[in-house]
Amino acid sequence: MFHKRLFHSSRAVLYNTLTPLTHLKHSHLQRNPNFAKITDKDIEYFKGILSPNNILYDPDPESLELRQHNTDWFNLYRGSASLCLFPTSTDQVSSILKYCNQRSLAVVPQGGNTGVSGGGIPVFDEIIINSSKMNKIRHFDDVSGVAVVDCGVILENLSQFLEKKGHIVPLDLGAKGSCHIGGNVSTNAGGLRFMRYGSLHGNVLGLEVVLPDGTILDNLSTLRKDNTGYDLKQLFIGAEGTLGYVTGVSLLTPRLPKAVNVAMVALDSFETVLKAFIMAKEDLSEILSAFEFWDADSVYVVKSQQTNDVSYPIEGKHAFYALLETQGSNGDHDQEKLDAYIARLFDTGVAKGGVLAQDTKQADFFWSWREKIPESIAKSGTAMTYDLSMEVSLLYKMVEDTRDYFNQKGLLGKDKLFSNLIGFGHLGDGNLHLMANLNKFSENGQKLMDDYVFEWTIKHNGSISAEHGIGVAKVGYMNQAKSDVQLRLMRSLKDVIDPKGIMNPYKIIPKA
Amino acid sequence: MFHKRLFHSSRAVLYNTLTPLTHLKHSHLQRNPNFAKITDKDIEYFKGILSPNNILYDPDPESLELRQHNTDWFNLYRGSASLCLFPTSTDQVSSILKYCNQRSLAVVPQGGNTGVSGGGIPVFDEIIINSSKMNKIRHFDDVSGVAVVDCGVILENLSQFLEKKGHIVPLDLGAKGSCHIGGNVSTNAGGLRFMRYGSLHGNVLGLEVVLPDGTILDNLSTLRKDNTGYDLKQLFIGAEGTLGYVTGVSLLTPRLPKAVNVAMVALDSFETVLKAFIMAKEDLSEILSAFEFWDADSVYVVKSQQTNDVSYPIEGKHAFYALLETQGSNGDHDQEKLDAYIARLFDTGVAKGGVLAQDTKQADFFWSWREKIPESIAKSGTAMTYDLSMEVSLLYKMVEDTRDYFNQKGLLGKDKLFSNLIGFGHLGDGNLHLMANLNKFSENGQKLMDDYVFEWTIKHNGSISAEHGIGVAKVGYMNQAKSDVQLRLMRSLKDVIDPKGIMNPYKIIPKA
Repeated sequence: MFHKRLFHSSRAVLYNTLTPLTHLKHSHLQRNPNFAKITDKDIEYFKGILSPNNILYDPDPESLELRQHNTDWFNLYRGSASLCLFPTSTDQVSSILKYCNQRSLAVVPQGGNTGVSGGGIPVFDEIIINSSKMNKIRHFDDVSGVAVVDCGVILENLSQFLEKKGHIVPLDLGAKGSCHIGGNVSTNAGGLRFMRYGSLHGNVLGLEVVLPDGTILDNLSTLRKDNTGYDLKQLFIGAEGTLGYVTGVSLLTPRLPKAVNVAMVALDSFETVLKAFIMAKEDLSEILSAFEFWDADSVYVVKSQQTNDVSYPIEGKHAFYALLETQGSNGDHDQEKLDAYIARLFDTGVAKGGVLAQDTKQADFFWSWREKIPESIAKSGTAMTYDLSMEVSLLYKMVEDTRDYFNQKGLLGKDKLFSNLIGFGHLGDGNLHLMANLNKFSENGQKLMDDYVFEWTIKHNGSISAEHGIGVAKVGYMNQAKSDVQLRLMRSLKDVIDPKGIMNPYKIIPKA
Repeated sequence: MFHKRLFHSSRAVLYNTLTPLTHLKHSHLQRNPNFAKITDKDIEYFKGILSPNNILYDPDPESLELRQHNTDWFNLYRGSASLCLFPTSTDQVSSILKYCNQRSLAVVPQGGNTGVSGGGIPVFDEIIINSSKMNKIRHFDDVSGVAVVDCGVILENLSQFLEKKGHIVPLDLGAKGSCHIGGNVSTNAGGLRFMRYGSLHGNVLGLEVVLPDGTILDNLSTLRKDNTGYDLKQLFIGAEGTLGYVTGVSLLTPRLPKAVNVAMVALDSFETVLKAFIMAKEDLSEILSAFEFWDADSVYVVKSQQTNDVSYPIEGKHAFYALLETQGSNGDHDQEKLDAYIARLFDTGVAKGGVLAQDTKQADFFWSWREKIPESIAKSGTAMTYDLSMEVSLLYKMVEDTRDYFNQKGLLGKDKLFSNLIGFGHLGDGNLHLMANLNKFSENGQKLMDDYVFEWTIKHNGSISAEHGIGVAKVGYMNQAKSDVQLRLMRSLKDVIDPKGIMNPYKIIPKA
């Protein structure tokens, strides 16, 4: 049986305090004076398109209802939208964008609001176009395994639907209980199954996109192979809503694996984590579906936020833990491969402890320790989150160097500016998540950490955004991360598709 | 052991006759009067950049040396270039394009010249920029499996290099002995391993591209995950050299499988082919790496071109054959899965005959029957080749309907306008290759077949180019295959990146 996991939402905790407005935190951001401001006439127009309960308007952006759309779930970004629209069809999105483009009203597409780079949150007063009311699974073909869905379908809902049909989504995230497929596509989400099923650039077969002027680009192919001209859908995968509004997604879904096995192992150094990973690639090869790792401090943070006393699956204190998952079509074969692998880990002294999940419940329990890491650190205070990719061998040196640097400056530890600096991530993809708590808000605090982490990463030929996107969080570092030629080409594409720049402004591309 | 296959080149046969000039066959094509014509001064300029043996210039485009660059290997397209350049570095490509752009000299990028849509062949007098002298493997990292290579590296050379390192190219084609990686990327080649390893849109990690104005876009990331801004490389994958010249490719290469098994089965109807395919997906799942099929007439064509008497692997006459390949990390497990699958095929009466390759040599022999199909039909006369994708259940109805249609018109058969109408392809990807011989050249003959096949395909929501690209072959059908919105967006992208339109003109996008 395939196991399901729940998303442990922590939003209720986060809304006790309001984070400062994004444009105050990032003071280089200025409202584009070319953009119009919303008038009563605009509201009237939208009332002509949408039913009243699909328009949320309040001149006070801090009103309780608007607040949850003006703030992200990590409580790091805050905008001042007074209008949030909930279209129920592609045609409605088209009418909205056509009007906004004519009126020069800036907009921000918003999905399940689980992004961590501020991509789905307004910076100033952009109109929010939320996808939660476009949530139909349009079509599923069980021979080809192709699903065509609305942008606002929640990942977990699609997952449950597909499992009944003997298929799975080629994408799995901690935020699956809230995130929308349209948002996943727009951020080119990676997640937990990336190493097995690959990127959305390969798994998305087609997209329906409303362009900034309201034109509907119907590119919803269900074909696995189609080389008729430029592969237009690719433009919108990972464009974070700056080139158009993704309204429909055609997705190739793999078959539900007949057997899923999960193991957790304890390791004493990052070197042995790497050894265990290389051995897993050798021994488990085509059935290896996840290789996650985290450090001892990650466990500490999760435990500190535990409401009831749940014991950790592995006894003793170890520097690192890895979680492996296999997915295959023959349970006996998979078990045999996994047993041989685990035996080799112990025989060679690579692993210091380990445990194999005996059933779905235990597998879920192992996974929950990995998935609770980001939310636990968010519960511990203001969370700073980094999403880096680089040569696998450097992944943890990044964390160690950052710790050393801020320790030396006396800024890291209990009651210091930063605490709980932890490292975890998707080893199989060379993807590290570094997180820490910022204990006292100051623009400087966030910037201090950003500067160090991003500069270190760029110096080591890494990416400052492996899977979370740029949003507004990292736009200030794009000049360092990308060449002039790359930025120029990005700007050209943006200008030709969105000449007025109304689609999710201030995001991704820095001002020239 | 992993088996190697050879590309059976048939070029010597093809060059006995000259095919008519492309612009005469496609009379709607007119030379763009904005393009300059080559002068002695231009030749002087190129002599200043390239060494003399890297410039092939002859005012007579039919000179023996130029002919092989002015004609494709199927002998279907012919251009009139008098100049073919062989740059040896990215900087040289940059200097060439910068100059050509300033002078408004049109160019056509050319790789191993194995394309079948005329994409790499000039239509008029475009300067050919051939990649065969950019053939270095720049870098390979055996932990990540990432290879960074020049555009002109031959696929089979890369394959042999990687196999020694314990890796494989995630792409395999019949033309592997001649085709270049740059050409593979530019046509978004699919091939024989697509169902297992997926699309180049997922496997290409980065590209180095020279833009039409000579700017070098260094996007050669070696990271598996990188979401820093628009994924620019995607634009050039499958753009057939109309947006820039791909000079370098960063490719994620999977590990060499420890076990490879090949089986061939005989089936009596296309329905049972489909059954065998669905059962293969169930039983072989993650180790299934290819599911190819062909019809009885394909075997007949291959046998008719056999120079020595080689017997077919399966006795008796059957309507269809399928070739399955598995790639896995445990030979015993794979064999067990395959045995169970074959047993089920026979027990359920789905297969009427079958044979398992006992060694690498026999596996190669099985594969050779599949790979010889296109070249055998090319040897039989002027070959028409179609590359379609659609709903799997319709794949062979396409062939049957086409046969019926032309039979009824009295145009199909020995000594008729068309003969040898066969169907074969990559069932796993919903990709059919339909081929036939055109026995008397007439613009009308090709057009008759094109019209029927493309209209049928579009009517059934298929793609008129699954993996071969549009080139010049299908540009006349793009108005039917794509919507106005799609074509308009393609033109916008082309105009913004190549405002003078010098990069591989007349290809992909029809005139507005």
